[in-house]
Amino acid sequence: MATDTLRWNGDYNGQVEMIDQTLLPTQYKTISIGDIEAMWEAIKVLRVRGAPAIGIAAAYGVILGIQKSVDSCSLDDVKQKVVQSCDYLATSRPTAVNLFWALDRIKTKAITGNAATSQQLAEELLKEANAIRDEDAQMCRAIGQNGKHLIPDGGGVLTHCNAGGLATADYGTALAVMFAAHEDGKKFRVFADETRPLLQGSRLTAWELQKAGIDVTVNCDNMAGWMMSQKMIDLVIVGADRIAANGDAANKIGTYSVAVLANYHNIPFYVAAPYSTFDMTLPEGSGIPIEQRDKSEIIEFSPGRRTAPHDVKVYNPAFDVTPAKLITGIITEKGLFKPEQIAQNNI
Amino acid sequence: MATDTLRWNGDYNGQVEMIDQTLLPTQYKTISIGDIEAMWEAIKVLRVRGAPAIGIAAAYGVILGIQKSVDSCSLDDVKQKVVQSCDYLATSRPTAVNLFWALDRIKTKAITGNAATSQQLAEELLKEANAIRDEDAQMCRAIGQNGKHLIPDGGGVLTHCNAGGLATADYGTALAVMFAAHEDGKKFRVFADETRPLLQGSRLTAWELQKAGIDVTVNCDNMAGWMMSQKMIDLVIVGADRIAANGDAANKIGTYSVAVLANYHNIPFYVAAPYSTFDMTLPEGSGIPIEQRDKSEIIEFSPGRRTAPHDVKVYNPAFDVTPAKLITGIITEKGLFKPEQIAQNNI
Repeated sequence: MATDTLRWNGDYNGQVEMIDQTLLPTQYKTISIGDIEAMWEAIKVLRVRGAPAIGIAAAYGVILGIQKSVDSCSLDDVKQKVVQSCDYLATSRPTAVNLFWALDRIKTKAITGNAATSQQLAEELLKEANAIRDEDAQMCRAIGQNGKHLIPDGGGVLTHCNAGGLATADYGTALAVMFAAHEDGKKFRVFADETRPLLQGSRLTAWELQKAGIDVTVNCDNMAGWMMSQKMIDLVIVGADRIAANGDAANKIGTYSVAVLANYHNIPFYVAAPYSTFDMTLPEGSGIPIEQRDKSEIIEFSPGRRTAPHDVKVYNPAFDVTPAKLITGIITEKGLFKPEQIAQNNI
Repeated sequence: MATDTLRWNGDYNGQVEMIDQTLLPTQYKTISIGDIEAMWEAIKVLRVRGAPAIGIAAAYGVILGIQKSVDSCSLDDVKQKVVQSCDYLATSRPTAVNLFWALDRIKTKAITGNAATSQQLAEELLKEANAIRDEDAQMCRAIGQNGKHLIPDGGGVLTHCNAGGLATADYGTALAVMFAAHEDGKKFRVFADETRPLLQGSRLTAWELQKAGIDVTVNCDNMAGWMMSQKMIDLVIVGADRIAANGDAANKIGTYSVAVLANYHNIPFYVAAPYSTFDMTLPEGSGIPIEQRDKSEIIEFSPGRRTAPHDVKVYNPAFDVTPAKLITGIITEKGLFKPEQIAQNNI
């Protein structure tokens, strides 16, 4: 399952080629992102989304932010431009920590690297951004291997939102587990919560799983509890946008409800996420900032098709936080851990 | 709050005037239903919906089914036509028991009434259908009075789907409680689950509450659990489509999840429904037939705007069943009962 969500094309004067995920599943289109403002916009409106993928996108965004200065500015000026670019990209979306992690990594490289010229700096930073991308792809494969035994043959798996190849460099986190089990020849059914308001489940997860030949059924989010009560679900696997030191995990809005419902029905609830998703500076999940998005996402489902009184109040948080006590295990590239092991293992 | 959801216009040769609820909230339009096939279609595609309202619609539908025969057929032939009309309308939707209850009432009137001519029979049956409508309006007012004390001043109330004036002759069941509390001068906030797939919450409930001057906020269904955890919700009130003798209650899909979430957060969960919603022939909720609807409702939200791979599998039950143990109380026109009191009181 190669998704090729986004990649850099060319030397540091090049651009990013990415799938425009807002158009899926009806249109599969790769777009070129040629400047930092376009990258900020692409992250903001979810042309690229998913915690690991927006980390990679932001890293490449910094290269876009400095490329016009490389041949005309001093090394120090370009380094200054790196910092400005990082600060700017950090304002695109607040919740996924991978964005800040990737920007920090690029900034640290700029400060601590050995580049003697602006050109060398740009080359080094592009190499670092490509490394973030390539490591992410490897981590996703490792997550798949570390979680695939959890899926019972003939079982039913519920997932929420999209933690697939489209949310990462390739292969995914929660979906990596399913891809790996499928590659081993296991038969199982996946139920994809459609995931309102932006339908990443029905638009993206169903598309990815279908492409991989995995048996997938789309359901509305409000059906998950009933499906559990009808014994259709054996386990839940979701991704994460930020995990606090105690194992509390922020993920797409609705994940918390799924975790409570799984708990009530004694169904295991797993989070799959790479190392870069942990924020050890936060002792618990209550410190994770929750992005609030525009009401139009909920009441103007498709442009020009309003589905509520136009002046009605709307509550539209993009994420929620699932407490560690509702999480059976966290599947990482380093292995499967109980939430309480995270801090102990200093993962 | 007078909604005027549907009413008969004229003598037995008249027709039904009803709000076409599929057009709300962007268009408020009253349509005329002049034959039984049009009534069957209106129930099927949810131009009229809500358990009590489709009972009334079906009762009027029988009049439409016989009116062309009244002047040309014998009394026995018209009675036969009543039975045929009832059988036909009973195939429109399977879950709400009020539909069958209303049809049985009309059929019983036809069999046991004193009509000496076809014309007298038609007049009697129209009178009976009008009585069903008028009694429903009175029952809704009584439900409001019997439940209004449950809403705390300054509190937050969550509701799912639409159990308002639009779901009944007028005033509603779950929303009747809110209208009555509002008329008493109480201040409180209502959160309306948008209620996928057909968005009766954002389209209809938000519209009704806003019209009544009640503070209403729309949220996606998958946000309810998170809102409870954030202490935004003090109680839940929903309607019902059929209640078994043990208090298990069928209602719009997603109600069960809300009930489990409320239970986890120690939030009271109330069902508001009239007498006609009880099905004492069913000892428990597992016997309630659950309508499965077309996949297009989920993956083609607005015509021509597909939101999933076109050949993906879809799970689309229209209702679920909340077990009595998750229901704090049932608000009826006869008072507020615990689910286990229903059978005892032979309500």
